[in-house]
Amino acid sequence: MNETLDTGLKSWVETANDPLTDFPIQNLPFGIFRRLGTRDAGRIGVAIGDQILDLAAADGGEPQSSLNTLMARGSEYSSALRMKISSWLRFGSKDRDRLAAALTPMEDCKMLLPVQIGDYTDFYASAFHATNVGRLFRPDNPLLPNYKYVPIAYHGRASSVVVSDTPVTWPSGQTNLSADQAPQFGPSQRVDYEVELGFYIGTGNALGAPVQMADAGNRIFGFSLVNDWSARDIQAWEYQPLGPFLGKSFATSVSPWVVTTEALSGFRRAANARAEGDPKPLAYLSDAHDQQHGGLDIVLEVWIETDAMRQTGAKPVRLSRGNFRDMYWTVAQMVAHHTSNGCNLRTGDLIASGTVSGEAPDARGCLLELTRGGAEPIQLPAGETRRFLQDGDEIILRARCERDGAVPIGFGECRGRVTSKPW
Amino acid sequence: MNETLDTGLKSWVETANDPLTDFPIQNLPFGIFRRLGTRDAGRIGVAIGDQILDLAAADGGEPQSSLNTLMARGSEYSSALRMKISSWLRFGSKDRDRLAAALTPMEDCKMLLPVQIGDYTDFYASAFHATNVGRLFRPDNPLLPNYKYVPIAYHGRASSVVVSDTPVTWPSGQTNLSADQAPQFGPSQRVDYEVELGFYIGTGNALGAPVQMADAGNRIFGFSLVNDWSARDIQAWEYQPLGPFLGKSFATSVSPWVVTTEALSGFRRAANARAEGDPKPLAYLSDAHDQQHGGLDIVLEVWIETDAMRQTGAKPVRLSRGNFRDMYWTVAQMVAHHTSNGCNLRTGDLIASGTVSGEAPDARGCLLELTRGGAEPIQLPAGETRRFLQDGDEIILRARCERDGAVPIGFGECRGRVTSKPW
Repeated sequence: MNETLDTGLKSWVETANDPLTDFPIQNLPFGIFRRLGTRDAGRIGVAIGDQILDLAAADGGEPQSSLNTLMARGSEYSSALRMKISSWLRFGSKDRDRLAAALTPMEDCKMLLPVQIGDYTDFYASAFHATNVGRLFRPDNPLLPNYKYVPIAYHGRASSVVVSDTPVTWPSGQTNLSADQAPQFGPSQRVDYEVELGFYIGTGNALGAPVQMADAGNRIFGFSLVNDWSARDIQAWEYQPLGPFLGKSFATSVSPWVVTTEALSGFRRAANARAEGDPKPLAYLSDAHDQQHGGLDIVLEVWIETDAMRQTGAKPVRLSRGNFRDMYWTVAQMVAHHTSNGCNLRTGDLIASGTVSGEAPDARGCLLELTRGGAEPIQLPAGETRRFLQDGDEIILRARCERDGAVPIGFGECRGRVTSKPW
Repeated sequence: MNETLDTGLKSWVETANDPLTDFPIQNLPFGIFRRLGTRDAGRIGVAIGDQILDLAAADGGEPQSSLNTLMARGSEYSSALRMKISSWLRFGSKDRDRLAAALTPMEDCKMLLPVQIGDYTDFYASAFHATNVGRLFRPDNPLLPNYKYVPIAYHGRASSVVVSDTPVTWPSGQTNLSADQAPQFGPSQRVDYEVELGFYIGTGNALGAPVQMADAGNRIFGFSLVNDWSARDIQAWEYQPLGPFLGKSFATSVSPWVVTTEALSGFRRAANARAEGDPKPLAYLSDAHDQQHGGLDIVLEVWIETDAMRQTGAKPVRLSRGNFRDMYWTVAQMVAHHTSNGCNLRTGDLIASGTVSGEAPDARGCLLELTRGGAEPIQLPAGETRRFLQDGDEIILRARCERDGAVPIGFGECRGRVTSKPW
């Protein structure tokens, strides 16, 4: 922990000192923005209160349209840059006049995909989620025998990762809901969301050279929210024996701000989801420091806004609230496992956690769990119900870190509306 | 079919007229090469006999270190370029003197990865392979109910795709071969190869805009050989419920030459693997022209060279010989299915067919099939046997198209040696 995290720091950007902001001076996440009305390819911005600091304008460098070059420079460089930005934006900074010209209100900007993503990997790191989903298929034996040994994951589709606010075209596909009928092709009847935490690789590893647990955290540049949209009926019919494919690859939404590993360092906790009697992690996944500090205390919420709510001016409704510290595997374990066979990670790779679900009924991170496979619809205001998503539904993910003795920070939002209408 | 495929065409590059060459003037595959002893980033080459034509030197353009820009220009551009190259290299060409200076012997060059691959997808399109593998797990019901409806596929790992001749580091991982013991981490005991045909997307599609069957073939720039290395013990323990991950992602080898869709047009056949009584493909996978011409008559062979063979100077031994026309799904069906949910393909994406196996015992495209899961070792010369690969084994994939009335063309080789030694 360094002075950028001091709770006493205030910014001369007044909105950054609002206790409810996601972006106080202790956060300073990176993203790529474009001023509305311009055709700029995008430039690196830093969120501060309700403003965006244009990094190239502040620092005198060339604008860059993705974070990849910055990410590749490693954690020491990022940390030094963060220190510089923190000192610029502090109350009393002598750079205030110069930097004020490099600020733009967020409401005047469009956020772009922050990272050129090489490969996208999706883990399955919540035992609560795996158990809830497994119970739908195998009531007596919900958690498979490998789960507590292997951080289960699959390769996802990188091309269809989109930034928050990008409409999601309603997916079609093959489904076979009844064993008596032939399969059919048509619009999915079971479109769902999944709330996940994602992280981006800063410095990768060479093919054949696994990353050890103690080094894994250093490879992570920062974190974002991920909505792993899922078409459950397509997924159910296609997934044997090679796993999810078209049930997922129509879209994955990410939030635009990348919260750095350093900004999150004040919210680390023991990794506490491994229960008494569970097997110890194998040696390549074991690390005493990670067991003490590998958990992340991040509250993730899911909200929904339906067409009817928009038409009546009703506010979005919260569907769930979970915490990332309930995950069975830590992010360092994900990195160590991913590379344990020699697989190389590259700058810009996106790794997502899998659905973040907790033990409580309202901590279930997707409709499949909340409605028990569609059997128990959830109630929304004005008599609306949902088993799965309907045309026009917007899902809003939010996340926030709050802890005694630390200034709260947030992730901003990850929004996406599923729609069958052209956009 | 255009005049570049005329059987009467001969080249002034004498070795291109050898009936045994893979690279007659009717082939003209593209690749990226570097002259040995230089640090060139790579440049586009065209294979002709035992020579490589430096495209930038011949054409006066800037050297490019991947084929992506060329591929993105679409099939009309590629076809026109191919016509120009064909006319340059024909016997009697007035450009001979100028072009001779742009030729380099293959033996003086190192081939590089030809394409910057965005996403890599691996299908499972041989019903023979799926049945042989399924029988090991489910003797009474080897083929799953979805197989004849859904072209099964999974997302693969793009970062670890390497070009032929790159050594493959022996993978380690978690395995659990006995239900009585706890899982262990260590070097895989069941390293295998899989012979596949791969193809690269030239012009992609927008997210949310599926590619129709009739348009699917146009999106394919060309074809290569793919060795989908597999660690069967890692795969068996990890793959439920989300499919293959670390059992595959340690390496995938591709051949350096990309044989264009046009060069293969003389070797098209009816897609004939769908047996009487099989369900008809759903409408989005149906196309009369594709049924008549979507098959590809390509013989694929797998050869092995062990350490012992190298030490005694013995020649490599052939392990199998299959034909791509035995695949259950055509490449157009793979493209149409992949995009049917709205998923976007991008220039440079690699799509592989899955293991190419046939009905005959010697047409099985991996050791898992050839040795029935390791139960029946294969015999090699000098008393050697193999259940799975051993340290130092080199696998050599070759493919060739031969047909009455056409000049045979080939793919060159895809080589890879698995090794636990540093390289």
